[in-house]
Amino acid sequence: MRELLRVAPGAAVDLRSVDPRSTPGLPGPEVTGPDRKAWARGQVVLLGAELGRQQEMLFADAKARAAGRPGRPAGAAGRVAAGRRVLLVLQAMDCGGKDGTVKRVAGAMNPLGLHVRSFGPPTAEELRHDFLWRVRRALPPPGYVGVFNRSHYEDVLAARVGALVPEPVWRARYDEINAFEREQADAGVTLVKVMLHISYAEQGRRLLERLDEPRKHWKYDPSDVDARARWDDYQAAYAEALSRCGTEAAPWHVVPADRKWYRDWAVAQLLRETFDTLDLGYPPAGFDVRRERERLLGSEGTRQMNGR
Amino acid sequence: MRELLRVAPGAAVDLRSVDPRSTPGLPGPEVTGPDRKAWARGQVVLLGAELGRQQEMLFADAKARAAGRPGRPAGAAGRVAAGRRVLLVLQAMDCGGKDGTVKRVAGAMNPLGLHVRSFGPPTAEELRHDFLWRVRRALPPPGYVGVFNRSHYEDVLAARVGALVPEPVWRARYDEINAFEREQADAGVTLVKVMLHISYAEQGRRLLERLDEPRKHWKYDPSDVDARARWDDYQAAYAEALSRCGTEAAPWHVVPADRKWYRDWAVAQLLRETFDTLDLGYPPAGFDVRRERERLLGSEGTRQMNGR
Repeated sequence: MRELLRVAPGAAVDLRSVDPRSTPGLPGPEVTGPDRKAWARGQVVLLGAELGRQQEMLFADAKARAAGRPGRPAGAAGRVAAGRRVLLVLQAMDCGGKDGTVKRVAGAMNPLGLHVRSFGPPTAEELRHDFLWRVRRALPPPGYVGVFNRSHYEDVLAARVGALVPEPVWRARYDEINAFEREQADAGVTLVKVMLHISYAEQGRRLLERLDEPRKHWKYDPSDVDARARWDDYQAAYAEALSRCGTEAAPWHVVPADRKWYRDWAVAQLLRETFDTLDLGYPPAGFDVRRERERLLGSEGTRQMNGR
Repeated sequence: MRELLRVAPGAAVDLRSVDPRSTPGLPGPEVTGPDRKAWARGQVVLLGAELGRQQEMLFADAKARAAGRPGRPAGAAGRVAAGRRVLLVLQAMDCGGKDGTVKRVAGAMNPLGLHVRSFGPPTAEELRHDFLWRVRRALPPPGYVGVFNRSHYEDVLAARVGALVPEPVWRARYDEINAFEREQADAGVTLVKVMLHISYAEQGRRLLERLDEPRKHWKYDPSDVDARARWDDYQAAYAEALSRCGTEAAPWHVVPADRKWYRDWAVAQLLRETFDTLDLGYPPAGFDVRRERERLLGSEGTRQMNGR
């Protein structure tokens, strides 16, 4: 899945060659049965449970290391960085399904070990700093699974299309982003960058749904239609960002996202495969188990019985 | 449920009078059927979906207000504070079930609108500030549901039992906490403070389970047995904190927690009843729906067709 959806580092990107309704990597009917949508929804639940287990091991490992213990035992310990964490970066056009992906895929994990951050238009304070300042402050701590709902990529997407900064400024950002992500990878952050790729027609349907359903009005913003009018400019900005910033250290993936059930399944799979590369395990006990057992079983005697 | 589990403001608290295996508020077998555990687990799933809906309305309402719009329509708007948010404060002895409650109850909500914070022993930096400094920094923003996994109450619990500060210092904190919580309530924070009440015997069973299951070793700490030896001191510290800080503005609730299925059900119910008092609803559209519909349906024509 990672190989299948990954933007090859350095390659040119043509988003028109990716059908937003396609389902790459989805098993054939001999596996999914006749209703592949129901199959995928069921798999997301199972994958979610597996992601929760992996997340717990990541968390436990970080806790042991923070206490100065070796974490994962034996040979594996030497191969992994100390500050390990996973960061899912979600980018998409409006209505691309970022919120739904967070809800269903991240929602399957334990909130205790999640670090979800949404990036809106920069505030006055954020604008006084360089564009990566707010991003650095939002990074997950070691042991956590972070999710960026939009990210520093808006600074080469919305900033570019809306001409919020001069061209030389946003052009310089590709290299700045690559240096930043390289630095994070070296510090133990495994980046999983995902563009949820929807079609112009599907965006139109979803915007109309938001207008026609009063409970969804809060999700609609008139500027969404302005951005829609700049669709091709945005697609070009995405293509260049994916091409310039699809690196070995932090690859980009394009997930066809017109079908929500495929999108959720594909992102869950990507995360699962990413966890697998981390070779996670529970850390060894940082105490003498037999001695603690004796202390515990003897503790009835040591209880200070004042007041009962 | 809120009334049933609530510590009456100003009342003395005797935790020995609350059976940790009891199930107050649970319907009788004519409602639950023969397997009340399975019933409660099923209810938690349903309640979770309802909590997710309420959470979304809270979030949508805050978004509208942040944009300078009135939020909830008509008469209700005047009755509610601008910066509304909900904060669940979880306290318990070790193994009391805080993590499990976060996982199952908070985990039913949308991670996008959750703000979960765990408090460990204060760091060197935290100790350089007053005890509420780190707590203020961890408060949920308007529109969010916050969860405190431990809290400022450790500063009158662990700090008291462990004699980390002199008695006059921790004694003064009851009033400081009440003033702080009053201030937060006035700012729109609805506090739901919950003590998960387990028995000494159940804690022993759970600690032993952590020792006997290598996958749970990471959750065990030898200091847990030291704290267990001070059980009665901790219970007394809890009783006084609940009594001194069970206020109208921020009531305490005692949830019997030896049975995990009851604990999850009771906390979910408490949250649900709390949401009900907020009289939430989706905010009215901040735009002209008909006009936006026309703009959207006409947007094919305005699309800038460069590059396709």
